[in-house]
Amino acid sequence: MNYREESLKKHAQWRGKIEVSCRVPVSCKEELGVAYTPGVAEPCLAIHDDIEKSFELTRRWNTVPVITDGTAILGLGDIGPEAGMPVMEGKCALFKAYGDVDAFPICIKSKDTEEIIRTIKLISGSFGGINLEDISAPRCFEIERRLLEELDIPVFHDDQHGTAIVVSAALLNALKLSGKQPGEVKAVVNGAGAAGIAISRFLLDIGIRHLTVCDKAGIICDSDEFNAPQRELAKLINPEGRRGTLADALRGADVFVGVSVAGVVSKEMVRSMAKDPIIFPMANPVSEISYDDAIEAGAFIVGTGSSAYPNQINNVLVFPGLFRGALDARARTVNREMLIAAARGLQQCVSSEQLSREYILPYAWDKKAHEAVAAAVRQAAIDSGVSKLYSK
Amino acid sequence: MNYREESLKKHAQWRGKIEVSCRVPVSCKEELGVAYTPGVAEPCLAIHDDIEKSFELTRRWNTVPVITDGTAILGLGDIGPEAGMPVMEGKCALFKAYGDVDAFPICIKSKDTEEIIRTIKLISGSFGGINLEDISAPRCFEIERRLLEELDIPVFHDDQHGTAIVVSAALLNALKLSGKQPGEVKAVVNGAGAAGIAISRFLLDIGIRHLTVCDKAGIICDSDEFNAPQRELAKLINPEGRRGTLADALRGADVFVGVSVAGVVSKEMVRSMAKDPIIFPMANPVSEISYDDAIEAGAFIVGTGSSAYPNQINNVLVFPGLFRGALDARARTVNREMLIAAARGLQQCVSSEQLSREYILPYAWDKKAHEAVAAAVRQAAIDSGVSKLYSK
Repeated sequence: MNYREESLKKHAQWRGKIEVSCRVPVSCKEELGVAYTPGVAEPCLAIHDDIEKSFELTRRWNTVPVITDGTAILGLGDIGPEAGMPVMEGKCALFKAYGDVDAFPICIKSKDTEEIIRTIKLISGSFGGINLEDISAPRCFEIERRLLEELDIPVFHDDQHGTAIVVSAALLNALKLSGKQPGEVKAVVNGAGAAGIAISRFLLDIGIRHLTVCDKAGIICDSDEFNAPQRELAKLINPEGRRGTLADALRGADVFVGVSVAGVVSKEMVRSMAKDPIIFPMANPVSEISYDDAIEAGAFIVGTGSSAYPNQINNVLVFPGLFRGALDARARTVNREMLIAAARGLQQCVSSEQLSREYILPYAWDKKAHEAVAAAVRQAAIDSGVSKLYSK
Repeated sequence: MNYREESLKKHAQWRGKIEVSCRVPVSCKEELGVAYTPGVAEPCLAIHDDIEKSFELTRRWNTVPVITDGTAILGLGDIGPEAGMPVMEGKCALFKAYGDVDAFPICIKSKDTEEIIRTIKLISGSFGGINLEDISAPRCFEIERRLLEELDIPVFHDDQHGTAIVVSAALLNALKLSGKQPGEVKAVVNGAGAAGIAISRFLLDIGIRHLTVCDKAGIICDSDEFNAPQRELAKLINPEGRRGTLADALRGADVFVGVSVAGVVSKEMVRSMAKDPIIFPMANPVSEISYDDAIEAGAFIVGTGSSAYPNQINNVLVFPGLFRGALDARARTVNREMLIAAARGLQQCVSSEQLSREYILPYAWDKKAHEAVAAAVRQAAIDSGVSKLYSK
């Protein structure tokens, strides 16, 4: 199928992938008096007495905005907030279909970090959580950090953590199949933007100890060519200040994770890696190396961002369940425990019997996978003491 | 029925009067590829080329936020943005049920005029129009004026114009029944807040020539006791600087419209009015004079804000149809022509045969009334040259 052509046609027919529906009867005087005036004054006053009641008497408990400033839409870059709307609406549709979350697209016409933070804070009282989307680095880090600090509802930047979680789940299963241990493998991440940095930090969290991260200027280190978040990460993983190209980094490596640009990995580079390498070239829409080339060059397992090949590494597997779990626990935040639980929950959706070189992750439309992520995140929120509804 | 008690119970059961639903299939690889990645890149790029396309390829064309800062919720006053949510959600439910508009509640945690304007402008790219709600005077005037000036989508403050439209429709029908002419009657409006001032201006627009407006300090005039919007109105309707109390104003008057506080009109005052007076005491939750007292004192027609009596004057009759019509025309604004068309459209929903002292307006749940308002507004938008889709 020519997805893009078909998609444009369908979007013009649909004129919207979501809509708001009315859940209450309002077809006579009595019904109107209960759902609206005069009766509605009573739930208003109840919330006025205790703002927490807004989670019980309105839809707030299940409602999440998908917020973008349009600066990093898919692989398309800074195309503007309105142009990002089809993606935001798509996410909202998936939030509902896979997680039963009521999500609503909000595009913000500003690229100013402080203004975006302020705007989101000002409207946060309508929502049970905040999903940040396709906001470019490094602004997205500060926006997420500040909102997590200043709001008492879950805040999640999908491009960072959704990607990190799904990559980690895929990698843990791939390592399981290859018989290698996370603590022993050498991993290389290429592309040190929002996703690359989040993936790198997450890999450390799940036990990867030998990690090299590259960006356009080569292996990142604490040096002028690199931006603040990159240098901060480099201090952690490259204290000795190693330098080199992506090709240098890949020599002898067991794992490649790419969130960079098309075609930067050659077959030769794959051949230079350790035995049975795991290759996740996820650049969008054209990957760092094609699935077929990677297999030909000896890759043991290949996962890409595309649904055209086995092992699609798709963060659609994460956000619906993550918010479902966080909302169900009424978590006051999103912490590392919840993120790691999401990765473990997702990983375990593939049983040892199912696990194969061409099936390391469940399919994005597998409802059981979303339920598993939700259950794991909910439990982690409770266990880590951030649930407002349940104590451990 | 004890509406308030029942309402609290039902709100706790419902946990939300609206929800977001998914309008597209996403249950296999192919469907996901069309509604989301990779296909969705194409509608994104189409909007990037032409922002107007966001009205064709996303739900923007049908989506309106119901925005409040929580400062003037029902008759409850400044109870805060979260506490206003049950009202906002209720409006969203009615928007859908009566106008098929996808409305979404947004509460803003700020009372600063500039900050509210800025916030709404920043998120306006997600929406086809803006419904302002329960924002206190005089800030609401400036907020609406500026947004109308600076945005190219319809902006409507329901408390002002929704109320003005429904009062005017009711009054035109009441006058028709009483055989009096708009240009000849003496009308008194009590309460010169957002609604009172909007009603007063609207009454002038529909042909009322003798108008007195009172506030707590008595008949408004161009003097220190009154705020800027009140003084501006006073220059128009009271250039001679008449002074006096509400009782003075009512003596000999044909029409009373109250958007003020409970009990300020006595039977004696009604008896001092002209023959067959029309009395609309709409204070909420307890009116300026009770329906029964007004009738006893000789009122020809009484309309209140309550559904417990005949002639409920309810702005639920206005906003769903008004936005339906404005969105269908893709109006770039809301102008006087559209507001007046809404009032005329609503008035004409009651046929001469139906019109009676106890039936001067259609019921709020009458879908035909909403359709009539929508059709009238749509046509007025086209005729006044503000439709982006149709020319006259």
